Amino acid sequence: MAPAITYRLIKEEKHTGARLGEVTTPHGSFLTPMFMPVGTLASVKSMAPEELKDMGAGIILSNTYHLWLRPGENIVKKAGGLHKFMNWDQGILTDSGGFQVFSLADTRNITEEGVTFKNHLNGAKMFLSPEKAMQIENDLGADIMMSLDECPPFFESYDYVKKSVARTSRWAERGLKAHSRPEDQGLFGIVQGAGFQDLRTQSAKDLVSLDFPGYAIGGLSVGESKAEMNRVLDFTTPLLPGNKPRYLMGVGSPDALIDGVIRGIDMFDCVLPTRIGRNGTVMTSHGRLVVKNAKYAEDFTPLDDNCNCYVCRNYTRAYIRHLIKADEMFGLHLASYHNLYFLIHLMNQVRQAIMDDNLLEFRESFFEAYGFNKEKAKNF
Amino acid sequence: MAPAITYRLIKEEKHTGARLGEVTTPHGSFLTPMFMPVGTLASVKSMAPEELKDMGAGIILSNTYHLWLRPGENIVKKAGGLHKFMNWDQGILTDSGGFQVFSLADTRNITEEGVTFKNHLNGAKMFLSPEKAMQIENDLGADIMMSLDECPPFFESYDYVKKSVARTSRWAERGLKAHSRPEDQGLFGIVQGAGFQDLRTQSAKDLVSLDFPGYAIGGLSVGESKAEMNRVLDFTTPLLPGNKPRYLMGVGSPDALIDGVIRGIDMFDCVLPTRIGRNGTVMTSHGRLVVKNAKYAEDFTPLDDNCNCYVCRNYTRAYIRHLIKADEMFGLHLASYHNLYFLIHLMNQVRQAIMDDNLLEFRESFFEAYGFNKEKAKNF
Ligand SMILES: [Zn+2]
Ligand SMILES: [Zn+2]
Repeated sequence: MAPAITYRLIKEEKHTGARLGEVTTPHGSFLTPMFMPVGTLASVKSMAPEELKDMGAGIILSNTYHLWLRPGENIVKKAGGLHKFMNWDQGILTDSGGFQVFSLADTRNITEEGVTFKNHLNGAKMFLSPEKAMQIENDLGADIMMSLDECPPFFESYDYVKKSVARTSRWAERGLKAHSRPEDQGLFGIVQGAGFQDLRTQSAKDLVSLDFPGYAIGGLSVGESKAEMNRVLDFTTPLLPGNKPRYLMGVGSPDALIDGVIRGIDMFDCVLPTRIGRNGTVMTSHGRLVVKNAKYAEDFTPLDDNCNCYVCRNYTRAYIRHLIKADEMFGLHLASYHNLYFLIHLMNQVRQAIMDDNLLEFRESFFEAYGFNKEKAKNF
Repeated sequence: MAPAITYRLIKEEKHTGARLGEVTTPHGSFLTPMFMPVGTLASVKSMAPEELKDMGAGIILSNTYHLWLRPGENIVKKAGGLHKFMNWDQGILTDSGGFQVFSLADTRNITEEGVTFKNHLNGAKMFLSPEKAMQIENDLGADIMMSLDECPPFFESYDYVKKSVARTSRWAERGLKAHSRPEDQGLFGIVQGAGFQDLRTQSAKDLVSLDFPGYAIGGLSVGESKAEMNRVLDFTTPLLPGNKPRYLMGVGSPDALIDGVIRGIDMFDCVLPTRIGRNGTVMTSHGRLVVKNAKYAEDFTPLDDNCNCYVCRNYTRAYIRHLIKADEMFGLHLASYHNLYFLIHLMNQVRQAIMDDNLLEFRESFFEAYGFNKEKAKNF
């Protein structure tokens, strides 16, 4: 049986080893490195599927925990799966629900069997296990699914993380066994281990022995510094097989994307572009710009004069500021649209730089223009 | 000098006299009868201009009072006018701001000169006169502008309405004198007079003598019954010249649109389709449907099986219900989109029925299917 998810390495950048590749799913292929927009509740906030396709998003992410609660995976299954339900015919990745259980839910109790918690909507007691996560994800029907893992805080004790990593490995094995649709869904394992090199090594070794069609690196972008994150990536990605895609979870700031690619990452996801967009902040080639600020009230230039997106071709900072100040949905939509385009376009540029073997030069000029080289640079 | 706004009568329906026509503006022409989507703050809530164009909206409305407050007409003027500001290259109509002053603002004081009030945003004292309304509307630069009028309650006393109507006529004359851009903006007069035939007659006579390029009927759809509204239209539209467009303000329920057309109305506007859409209610060929209700949770049919809009071609009631229940913007967008399409498509059907001289038969079958013939029928 052919695996549902395959990876083809096209080229490694000469100086960094950064990978240009292609991931093929049952719903089409996409080039990597790729940024995946997040559609938590089966909708990338404010965006139509056609708009995401137009900007080159070949895969989006949706959240198992949220869909389990609303509308319930049974409704999505009856609709014919997530692709049909949300009118998206390209790739979809679902997380395992674990991250939200550990970050949103109350009164969690983790045992070997799974995790009991109260959900954040109505406080009802629920139970998530590797098998339950797989049942939900199989019902949702995404192309790529994630194993249930525990994502411990980055600065948790060595002893705790060691036990947690071992359990996450056992959970990964149980998930793989419970996976009922291997012909059209691929399950990825998640490497954990916080900042500890030997635990990351053990985690990677455990998971690689299970031969997943792809691997994620979890437990990063959870409050640690970017230097810490890069240090962990430096010793973790080399532990992963070269013929499988590598996904760094929850990362969306432009500097972290570029630095992740340099360390061998192929896929990223983050709510950052839509979340800050709804807040009136946009990413531009000259750095972040808080378009709702008063100084843009009479600024009739586009959000980013180097951007060729629908928003920058048709609307001004003054108009978008006005809409956001007046709580008009279309303003939040325009800011979200531009931010998503910005990251997807950034990945286009990164792939070109890999082709041209000048990724470090690209990084340098991008960081300089964005302001990442300044002291006390903003986080994105 | 050619007038900015012209009307061409194409055909009168044989049995009712309902008019098929064409209004030409400096930003293109549109067929009438026409429903105009409302973009209060320079955005039809959640809608992209391209989407409105796709569904055949040849003209939209925006609100002078709201734009005066935010972002201020000076910013819109600096942007090059409302068309450029909001990226809409077809017709725009602005009201005078009067209706909002009389419905939203606090502590109004009306004198011959104008109206003093506290705005609803920060309570600042402001003054609106016929000349000020014209200055704002000239700065906004819409194709069609409205005179400042007073819109008294429908059941106000005869004596009050008589004085109010006379003042509105004097204000209309002052507005016409203050209008500084007659070459590229057309100013419409507004017939008032509540439910009193002689006052409507006087108002129409006053305004027609001023030779506006179009006339609105105001002071309706403000709480009176539909029978009352139709009674007023029966005696008011015949007072208006046949070679000018006639606009019934603030009306958007499908039955009232059809009954207005039968009485000689050419243009309508209302926030109804977007407002109820954001609330999870949609208009369908089988009547209103509250898609957020639990009974649609597993309904994988379109909002309206007779509708060919983007929403009905691509999304199900179950998905839209899920999005609206989860406060996802895209759900509000889809419901708003369908409702706007529904009314614009209804006007297409009405124009066809005028061509075919079977408007009364169309009305009968539409009313029957929608449920307007039932006792205690819902308002829309
Ligand atoms: Zn842009
Ligand atoms: Zn529809």
